[in-house]
Amino acid sequence: MDYGIVVFPQKAVQDIINSYRKRYDPHYSLIPPHITLKEKFELSEENLDEAVAKLDRIAQEVKRFSIKFHKVSHFYPTSNTIYLAIQNSDPLIELHNKIKDAFGKDETPYDFIPHLTIGQKMSEDELHDVYGSLRMRTFELETKIDRFHLMYQLENKSWTVYQSFLLAK
Amino acid sequence: MDYGIVVFPQKAVQDIINSYRKRYDPHYSLIPPHITLKEKFELSEENLDEAVAKLDRIAQEVKRFSIKFHKVSHFYPTSNTIYLAIQNSDPLIELHNKIKDAFGKDETPYDFIPHLTIGQKMSEDELHDVYGSLRMRTFELETKIDRFHLMYQLENKSWTVYQSFLLAK
Repeated sequence: MDYGIVVFPQKAVQDIINSYRKRYDPHYSLIPPHITLKEKFELSEENLDEAVAKLDRIAQEVKRFSIKFHKVSHFYPTSNTIYLAIQNSDPLIELHNKIKDAFGKDETPYDFIPHLTIGQKMSEDELHDVYGSLRMRTFELETKIDRFHLMYQLENKSWTVYQSFLLAK
Repeated sequence: MDYGIVVFPQKAVQDIINSYRKRYDPHYSLIPPHITLKEKFELSEENLDEAVAKLDRIAQEVKRFSIKFHKVSHFYPTSNTIYLAIQNSDPLIELHNKIKDAFGKDETPYDFIPHLTIGQKMSEDELHDVYGSLRMRTFELETKIDRFHLMYQLENKSWTVYQSFLLAK
């Protein structure tokens, strides 16, 4: 079964981002707005309990924190993705690294840059258009992050939450 | 903010039900296949921690269990909903009752009948057609239920999981 690990920003941020995702992100209806901590990975039924125990431990090791989204950025030409960049992403990188140490590296060859996707799989023209119109906007969004979620993917490509993990107080 | 409390059947059941929901359930892309334990209710930010504490306690009081789905049924004429009926639904009713005792009764005037929705908001003709074609099918689906989830609703009517609660072993 395919799993992934994400954090959801608070509702206010999800609502704002969804107003863009609706137009620009083909994954809009498959999963709520999220920051990926670990990309899709396979996990067998037998290894699920051990994975949950690892994530429990990691959650206890990391204190809850807040992050700010300040501007729109993109991954072009690596991928045609536009996203909200995160100003103070160190705690997300720490979480990602702990998960990487416990589960192994993601299969992607790219460095981990925590981000909240606004649009993806766009044509080059669309990406430049949308980025051009959004890059001058300042965003002042903040969200607390006090949990992360282990999710699994269904046949229709949508995601269901398996379990939430609360960060330390 | 609007919250709801649900259980998700295991992936195999979700995949089968989604093949019907895709055609018959307008909520298909808003939430994964689920059994509702508590209908949508409002909860203020200040009362969230207390609600979570109540749900933690309830989860510890109820042992994980299995349920079987055996046949298609409907709520017509109360509502134009077709669903998979649950053979041994006592533990779900127990969970519902504990949540009702802790949070108050749902606003709906109907008795709680645990169910897994296949289709809803159908026209009367469609409901009779679909029920007619499914009623002769036997379903032999089983799922373990070892957790429930507190979810919140976004502006676009989709649902995000806030927290999972593990039932006792």
